[in-house]
Amino acid sequence: MANSKFEYVRNFETTDFLLPNTWIVVRVDGRGFTKMCSKYGFEKPNDRRALDLMNAAAKAVVTELPEITIAYGVSDEYSFVFHKASTLFERRASKLVSTVVSTFTANYVFSWSAHFPETPLSHPLPSFDGRAVCYPSVENLRDYMSWRQVDCHINNLYNTTFWSLIRLGGLDNKEAEKTLAGTLAADKNEILFSRFSINYNNEPEMLKKGSVIFRDYELVEPKSPNITQTIDAQAEPIQQSKTQKEKDKKSRAKARVVVEHLDIIKDDFWDRRPWLLSNKPGKIPKET
Amino acid sequence: MANSKFEYVRNFETTDFLLPNTWIVVRVDGRGFTKMCSKYGFEKPNDRRALDLMNAAAKAVVTELPEITIAYGVSDEYSFVFHKASTLFERRASKLVSTVVSTFTANYVFSWSAHFPETPLSHPLPSFDGRAVCYPSVENLRDYMSWRQVDCHINNLYNTTFWSLIRLGGLDNKEAEKTLAGTLAADKNEILFSRFSINYNNEPEMLKKGSVIFRDYELVEPKSPNITQTIDAQAEPIQQSKTQKEKDKKSRAKARVVVEHLDIIKDDFWDRRPWLLSNKPGKIPKET
Amino acid sequence: MANSKFEYVRNFETTDFLLPNTWIVVRVDGRGFTKMCSKYGFEKPNDRRALDLMNAAAKAVVTELPEITIAYGVSDEYSFVFHKASTLFERRASKLVSTVVSTFTANYVFSWSAHFPETPLSHPLPSFDGRAVCYPSVENLRDYMSWRQVDCHINNLYNTTFWSLIRLGGLDNKEAEKTLAGTLAADKNEILFSRFSINYNNEPEMLKKGSVIFRDYELVEPKSPNITQTIDAQAEPIQQSKTQKEKDKKSRAKARVVVEHLDIIKDDFWDRRPWLLSNKPGKIPKET
Amino acid sequence: MANSKFEYVRNFETTDFLLPNTWIVVRVDGRGFTKMCSKYGFEKPNDRRALDLMNAAAKAVVTELPEITIAYGVSDEYSFVFHKASTLFERRASKLVSTVVSTFTANYVFSWSAHFPETPLSHPLPSFDGRAVCYPSVENLRDYMSWRQVDCHINNLYNTTFWSLIRLGGLDNKEAEKTLAGTLAADKNEILFSRFSINYNNEPEMLKKGSVIFRDYELVEPKSPNITQTIDAQAEPIQQSKTQKEKDKKSRAKARVVVEHLDIIKDDFWDRRPWLLSNKPGKIPKET
Repeated sequence: MANSKFEYVRNFETTDFLLPNTWIVVRVDGRGFTKMCSKYGFEKPNDRRALDLMNAAAKAVVTELPEITIAYGVSDEYSFVFHKASTLFERRASKLVSTVVSTFTANYVFSWSAHFPETPLSHPLPSFDGRAVCYPSVENLRDYMSWRQVDCHINNLYNTTFWSLIRLGGLDNKEAEKTLAGTLAADKNEILFSRFSINYNNEPEMLKKGSVIFRDYELVEPKSPNITQTIDAQAEPIQQSKTQKEKDKKSRAKARVVVEHLDIIKDDFWDRRPWLLSNKPGKIPKET
Repeated sequence: MANSKFEYVRNFETTDFLLPNTWIVVRVDGRGFTKMCSKYGFEKPNDRRALDLMNAAAKAVVTELPEITIAYGVSDEYSFVFHKASTLFERRASKLVSTVVSTFTANYVFSWSAHFPETPLSHPLPSFDGRAVCYPSVENLRDYMSWRQVDCHINNLYNTTFWSLIRLGGLDNKEAEKTLAGTLAADKNEILFSRFSINYNNEPEMLKKGSVIFRDYELVEPKSPNITQTIDAQAEPIQQSKTQKEKDKKSRAKARVVVEHLDIIKDDFWDRRPWLLSNKPGKIPKET
Repeated sequence: MANSKFEYVRNFETTDFLLPNTWIVVRVDGRGFTKMCSKYGFEKPNDRRALDLMNAAAKAVVTELPEITIAYGVSDEYSFVFHKASTLFERRASKLVSTVVSTFTANYVFSWSAHFPETPLSHPLPSFDGRAVCYPSVENLRDYMSWRQVDCHINNLYNTTFWSLIRLGGLDNKEAEKTLAGTLAADKNEILFSRFSINYNNEPEMLKKGSVIFRDYELVEPKSPNITQTIDAQAEPIQQSKTQKEKDKKSRAKARVVVEHLDIIKDDFWDRRPWLLSNKPGKIPKET
Repeated sequence: MANSKFEYVRNFETTDFLLPNTWIVVRVDGRGFTKMCSKYGFEKPNDRRALDLMNAAAKAVVTELPEITIAYGVSDEYSFVFHKASTLFERRASKLVSTVVSTFTANYVFSWSAHFPETPLSHPLPSFDGRAVCYPSVENLRDYMSWRQVDCHINNLYNTTFWSLIRLGGLDNKEAEKTLAGTLAADKNEILFSRFSINYNNEPEMLKKGSVIFRDYELVEPKSPNITQTIDAQAEPIQQSKTQKEKDKKSRAKARVVVEHLDIIKDDFWDRRPWLLSNKPGKIPKET
């Protein structure tokens, strides 16, 4: 029985290759997150268990897809960065997005009970959507990462102050909103400190900075002050020998995937971890 | 602290709206399915539990996304059809694909233990990729569905014969392959019947036809022999009143989502279920 | 001297195939048309010579590209329709757009002196931009064509009244604008008739209806009142035999390409010219 | 008369914005060039008049579109490079391609008679197609330009030898082809020199190197040997003040657009003309 009569329908499939030599960011977002927060009783403004679960799922994604060089997450979103030299799935957008989203979701659901042992999942289950964006230069990529971390800071400062006004100050939602309308960061810091003796600087790093996930190698002393400026030129060539690729793959498999809460806006983070942008695995640290 | 310095990176996001007034098929495929079969000891050529799990996950997707008019699955793949009038997520490809894939994955992992109670999941977890394809006409859409069902038939007949030759005939893989090389459907039927007294027609419908999922209403007597020919013209208008939309939504919510194993190539299936293509909910059957 | 070192740059080329089985409209628009009107002293509100030149260029495009089934033009724009079964240039958007735009421009510049014998062209030369849009159904396509013809009507009625108020009524631009603000079609007809004794219905057809270009065959008596409703099903199959294609090509080459000024919104135009949508060449009329 | 009933068709238009911060190359190619060569009796292997006409048309394009930083042409093709910071037409691919192709075609047809005074144009007129490709880094862009120039060299050396074998050596086409099959560049140089006393190095630069078009400023002494390596970082920011943009626009308008025949593969060409990549206009040379 030949299948040829119907097979013409394959011609309707379109290709969605992403431009070569650009950094691919796949961002995953929780669907209906507000509803989920109330359904499962997530704590306000931050639920430690929920963030740990996000990080666990994201760590699994980075571990399973070694072509991801770095990931950054905050609240119910996570951004995964594929190196500009990556040719995974021939750089097809739908393949990259769906694989990341699926792997993330599988791990989120699978690990749920470890983080919420007393709150079983029920339908509709948590789910995520995703999209891919290309960034041509290291500067664009770092600006993207900075954008997400600044967003994290802005939201967390707002939420921390908002919920302090409600929980500790006895205001209702509308009063808290009104109090914060038009305030600057300094104003919010002042409200926290003067009214509630909270020093925002002492808040947990994970809440202030979000979470960054990467393969960990020995830190490097920055050679020159402007190393990141020329990193575009230093990044590894698009075409690499198979032997080198295999060797790098093994190095990556040996590296530990870590979840940290660091400033990724300043140069220092990138200067000391040149492997993140160069795609050349670093030196595995000696165990202690 | 203004975020404007970095916010320009949003300009790199591209839109991926799918052409209006076309049928959108989102197909989900298991990643590394062969590996998974052996890891979890799926039975050959078909593992009933694995297929039931696929169907359960797909049924949850159809239930949660009422804009899906029909779904068809076989082996480790499932195709979900959004009506050509659907404007879900503004028809953005990445949103549609990632949401379907994520919802499918969440349910697959969540329902695993119910179908494989003695085989716990372990890393790497099952995951799926997906893509979206547009089909402009009902004819194209039905040809797509037919293509998948013909594929199901071809593969299942081959696999049934192949594994009979091995299990019942004592051949090894290479001998079985050689025996089947160049054979037609009739030859395979003959091998099954003459050597192993297996009548392929008596094989389970789910294996021969795959699974089709849809909202169930009262079947309709086809009015004319060529109703499907003119269905393109009959399908509901792109723009519909809000009231009608709300009413249809409620009708859909009341309808039972069923998993069947039917011939979807012939006209009869479509003629008797006009709601699948018209997007107008049918009559809810009286309970018995 | 091998070229391989640089040839990798070809991988950056992306494909832009348009969805099969959809009607492709390539619309061409004059660039900086207002400037050009004043530079070459086009008459207001319509310059007969300029419209004739547009039609001449468009007719050349339809003649050279037989896969164009119909074209419609008004003012400085022209829409060219490729049949949904067309596979010209593998349906690559940039190829289709650039070829139509280039052929149109070449003919516009080449034929300029025939239409403006006393006004030589000078730099910057007239130029046009273009884009391609896909329409899945005959209804969508006809609505597109209707949209352009309604636009033609609205603009021409406005412009005719506006310039009558100025030329014949002695108003200045602002006064004319103010007079017309908020008026309906009936009001404008009334102004023309009562103030200037102009019956808009007697204005030239080309100005009221725009221009439509197609291959001319013998008109057909419409068989049934709803022929256009079922035309989607009647249109010729995507895959056609080579012999049939060659035969049709010859028929098309023999047909006369005509420029008419007809109502393309009503069914009658399409019912009597079934070849426009069916892609099956009609009967060549006997010469008289 | 409202137009709203049909206006929904605008929703079928798709956007085709090219990725920001990437170099846009619009390449224009002659359609049916071989046929045209014989129709108008172009000389083999190179027709000086035809190349001059191509250059005149391309020069007009660069002059009219100051966002083009450089153009390179050979035979019947021309590549136009928009700076990666360009936001012309919001970077819409079809607008950019169609405008370049239309402007090129208009000038080609308009200037024909100046270059072929004794050979009037006739239908079908010369026409061109085009496409846009994005290159993320300066390295990718220069590799693209090098690719075209190497191609020019390979083809011209082959054609020069091929036609010498026929014209001077008395071979027919097949014999010439056979003679050249498998030969390297050195072999062809040797054939030219030993059989026909032709030193390929003395061939006209335009034929050996193609033509490069750009705005001419005072040449610069390269500051460091690796200036091009860091040019990605030095290139002007994506967002520029309006005042600066206006100022640069005026500088560009004053600059002379030149057609040269230079080596664009080596660093020297780029090092001495930093304005080509930096997008900062250079110093207008004093007239002599």
